[in-house]
Amino acid sequence: MEKRTNYCGDVNEQFVGKTVSLDGWVQRRRDLGGLIFVDLRDYRGIVQLVFNNDDSEIFAQAETLRSEYVINAIGTVRLRGDKAINPNMKTGKVEVVVEKLEILNKSKTPPFEIADDIDTTEETKLKYRYLDFRRPVMQKALRTRAQIKHSVNEYLYDNGFIDIETPNLGKSSPEGARDYLVPSRVYPGSFYALPQSPQLFKQLLMVGGFDRYFQLAHCFRDEDLRGDRQPEFTQIDIETSFMSTEEIQEVTEGLIARVMKDEKGIDVKLPFPRLEWDDAMDRYGSDKPDIRFGMELQNLNDIFADSEFKVFKGAIDNGGQVKAIVVKDAADKYSRKNIDAYTEYIKRFGAKGLAWVKYNDDKLTGPVAKFITSHEDDLVKRLGLTNNDLVLFVADQKKVVADALGYLRTDIAKNLHLYDPNEFAYVWVVNWPLFEYDEGIQRWTAAHHPFTMPNEEDVHYLNDGEDPHKAYAQSYDIVLNGYELGGGSIRIHNREIQEKMLKALDFTPERANAEFGYLMDALTYGCPPHGGLAIGLDRFAMLLSGKENIRDVIAFPKNSNATEPMTHAPARVSKEQLDELGIQVEDEK
Amino acid sequence: MEKRTNYCGDVNEQFVGKTVSLDGWVQRRRDLGGLIFVDLRDYRGIVQLVFNNDDSEIFAQAETLRSEYVINAIGTVRLRGDKAINPNMKTGKVEVVVEKLEILNKSKTPPFEIADDIDTTEETKLKYRYLDFRRPVMQKALRTRAQIKHSVNEYLYDNGFIDIETPNLGKSSPEGARDYLVPSRVYPGSFYALPQSPQLFKQLLMVGGFDRYFQLAHCFRDEDLRGDRQPEFTQIDIETSFMSTEEIQEVTEGLIARVMKDEKGIDVKLPFPRLEWDDAMDRYGSDKPDIRFGMELQNLNDIFADSEFKVFKGAIDNGGQVKAIVVKDAADKYSRKNIDAYTEYIKRFGAKGLAWVKYNDDKLTGPVAKFITSHEDDLVKRLGLTNNDLVLFVADQKKVVADALGYLRTDIAKNLHLYDPNEFAYVWVVNWPLFEYDEGIQRWTAAHHPFTMPNEEDVHYLNDGEDPHKAYAQSYDIVLNGYELGGGSIRIHNREIQEKMLKALDFTPERANAEFGYLMDALTYGCPPHGGLAIGLDRFAMLLSGKENIRDVIAFPKNSNATEPMTHAPARVSKEQLDELGIQVEDEK
Repeated sequence: MEKRTNYCGDVNEQFVGKTVSLDGWVQRRRDLGGLIFVDLRDYRGIVQLVFNNDDSEIFAQAETLRSEYVINAIGTVRLRGDKAINPNMKTGKVEVVVEKLEILNKSKTPPFEIADDIDTTEETKLKYRYLDFRRPVMQKALRTRAQIKHSVNEYLYDNGFIDIETPNLGKSSPEGARDYLVPSRVYPGSFYALPQSPQLFKQLLMVGGFDRYFQLAHCFRDEDLRGDRQPEFTQIDIETSFMSTEEIQEVTEGLIARVMKDEKGIDVKLPFPRLEWDDAMDRYGSDKPDIRFGMELQNLNDIFADSEFKVFKGAIDNGGQVKAIVVKDAADKYSRKNIDAYTEYIKRFGAKGLAWVKYNDDKLTGPVAKFITSHEDDLVKRLGLTNNDLVLFVADQKKVVADALGYLRTDIAKNLHLYDPNEFAYVWVVNWPLFEYDEGIQRWTAAHHPFTMPNEEDVHYLNDGEDPHKAYAQSYDIVLNGYELGGGSIRIHNREIQEKMLKALDFTPERANAEFGYLMDALTYGCPPHGGLAIGLDRFAMLLSGKENIRDVIAFPKNSNATEPMTHAPARVSKEQLDELGIQVEDEK
Repeated sequence: MEKRTNYCGDVNEQFVGKTVSLDGWVQRRRDLGGLIFVDLRDYRGIVQLVFNNDDSEIFAQAETLRSEYVINAIGTVRLRGDKAINPNMKTGKVEVVVEKLEILNKSKTPPFEIADDIDTTEETKLKYRYLDFRRPVMQKALRTRAQIKHSVNEYLYDNGFIDIETPNLGKSSPEGARDYLVPSRVYPGSFYALPQSPQLFKQLLMVGGFDRYFQLAHCFRDEDLRGDRQPEFTQIDIETSFMSTEEIQEVTEGLIARVMKDEKGIDVKLPFPRLEWDDAMDRYGSDKPDIRFGMELQNLNDIFADSEFKVFKGAIDNGGQVKAIVVKDAADKYSRKNIDAYTEYIKRFGAKGLAWVKYNDDKLTGPVAKFITSHEDDLVKRLGLTNNDLVLFVADQKKVVADALGYLRTDIAKNLHLYDPNEFAYVWVVNWPLFEYDEGIQRWTAAHHPFTMPNEEDVHYLNDGEDPHKAYAQSYDIVLNGYELGGGSIRIHNREIQEKMLKALDFTPERANAEFGYLMDALTYGCPPHGGLAIGLDRFAMLLSGKENIRDVIAFPKNSNATEPMTHAPARVSKEQLDELGIQVEDEK
């Protein structure tokens, strides 16, 4: 095998007259009389090879080349004739006259062409993932992911962070999502759990004096697949001691700025804006607002407090809200049918209806216009309506209003192209509630996790006789273009507060001790004040790649149907293996 | 909380007159009349704080300080008086006169002092790992490990390698060690396996055109604990396309040189020596020779071929060997009792005995001397014996001789301090046999793994009617100071050879297809020639840290007894969880 001297995609006019040795895949072969042209591809690009029949042996070899054959070609670089120049290719001014050819491997005809825009199913691409990888768009996506990892590694190292690996075989956690379990051979009948996050371990590292820790941590959740979720994921996991929220945000901003510079060549403006959680919910109806565009939610309670329109007044009287968004100069783009579809959609958020008016020729029209004529002037003024505006109202409980209008705001903005898809708008959402009510399980849970420090002035809410759910937390999320990129908090470093926190989450002292006694003991041995955050690497890579499915930035994702390749798929195992682990399979289907 | 301006360990005479804000742990407090001295520690070192009773409030606070309290101290740096200078401390010329003190957290009395040389059990240290972490020696070891990772990341990135993560939930492999299994919820009764290595995935990446891949890969083997083995480990995993063995070795040498320079400040000499596997076994009795010292094994078959000494002649007549090592100028250090202990020990390798002679005053003495008098001159000449030499002989089958003398060679060298423990001697062991006979399971197995390419001239041995076990492989191990640091090979990129290889390993075509069909299909779609290697990060960190137990470079190791902390220990899980996975626990002990 001859040694490669250059990548195909790098051969350009600077190499004219020089001999190059290239390895790559045959993109296509064209025969033109006594000449054969071969486009040879590697991940850096494509270069044109030329074989002429001066050398009948090589020419005969070249005639056997088919798509995706792997070859080494040695030849001399020359300029193409003027007419043959391809200005769309980096290598389009040159070609390589081949003097030596070695076929390194043959290929069957691939099930799809190795090109970006191909018409094949997602399933086929995943089945032949190794061919999918060869497409430039896949190379780019996985290289973007790798670049982010590298920039993160360098930035954190340069800032004094130490990379420490925490175990993958740990203890099942009573909080959070469903764990993947791993049966123990040493303790048959017992199970390890794969980590959902290294939270406890990184807090122990802080107790241990590693004051700036990071890890590209593998985490696991046994949940159903979604476009933006895989059961295995990687997080940029950070924890620091002796740092305030502001200092942690500053170091995170530096990290993001470094990634944006290295990968996108963009100088982001620092610091990122901060939004209080209450304000984010109020203005955007979301705790992960996309701030690339306005169309904010407007509270109209004062206008409709005494309204004759029962739907609005009733919502307010029930402790709810009337809020609206204004879709500027787009009333003509939304038919009644469009709006009815939205009305139907937002029922999933609990909304009973969607009221709307259009503003044209200085007056409101639409089905509810007649009910609000007495407020028309106030409304036009408040909302700054101009011709062809569409106003969408939701009147309901606060959370329903936020969810429904928050959804409408982002979906409409996407449809109307109200933002530049190449813009990256970061924002911190800070000061979250400490608890949130989980409707599914009908109880209060930790909004972030049970180790989150309440705001100093709110600690007293955890005392007996007070309402802990009024407390806000020293927590913060970093949001990018409407996605939660990451989040973190200052942690509890005091055993007494930790005990109260667990009590507020309905842990008995016995259960608190059984589950978290190890951490709570550690808090009593000189635990420093500490806090950190985690950023989702997969989502970060997805957003910087302009993708909408997390599978596109994961080399070997889990597939959403039963066609997982054998490298991934779970399989039956032998009875001997199970016996050793002390388990039985229930149902031998 | 005040913002930290400096680390304790960094405060020196350059800061005299300046105000510093320090965070750290109280190492100790000494009260001397109207002064309190506190040694304050962070991971960079210790600095002396001084409190005087000018400010009674701060002084009273200082009086409450105990070991491992966490404080912030703000004060002015001043030079110590001449008599108070401590030349053993980086900060020994200065002290900080504290003007503001905040106790950030208290500490119970720790179960052991936070210092390097402490007299406590390994078990206690692991139980209080978070306190163990605070000891400088542990900080150093984990920072060495992190530095290696960082150097590896930088070097490979700079050399065009792409970091790609492969799945942790994969398919159980029929080869290799025992897998950790993970029950699947989507396919109840089926199991994923945690990866023992990303071997198949990285080969698929090569098929996919990522021609230089690396990963700091987490791997798992459900094996019993040993000093140099943990069930979870991390490997520096590398794979390349279109590169020869020599090119892969060159890039690996560059990687190791970078690590040695960054972490140890050592310029290693490149290239590393290469040893054929046959020669390594012959000269050192080991496939992972420690070449920091000589004492090589000497083959004496020619001398003893016609010996009257039946033990020696018999071994040779049975197709075995008589080999010896010479322990120079140390005969007086080995009593008969010492040697008897060795004789006992090497029985585990199958050796029936250990013959020995001492050379003093120009003659051989010892129990077998009288049987070899007729060969004495030849022996003295061949072995270059001089006064006070000890010669140890083993006569047996080749493998027994190698194992026994290989062990004696390294153990004796360690006892006699025949090498500099701070020397790092790397050597490549190349050209391994393709197969090895596993006495345990009584069959031939792949010496490296079933994807290893035979030497070109040996491929024919895989054909029907030939003896595959004669084949040697395009494989290579990198050895450091007698430890296998890593290893790799050129892989099979041709389906036909892969099929023959699996057949030689007694796979039926059906089983070969069931287990490795996905890979073999991939080989038919333009798979490039490829090869790579894996280096054990944990072992690398252990050796560069001068440690002998892998636990010392892993933050949260598995413990070897039943006292695993609750963060790690496997636990019982609920019946609901098990039901969802379709498994039962057999024995509710």
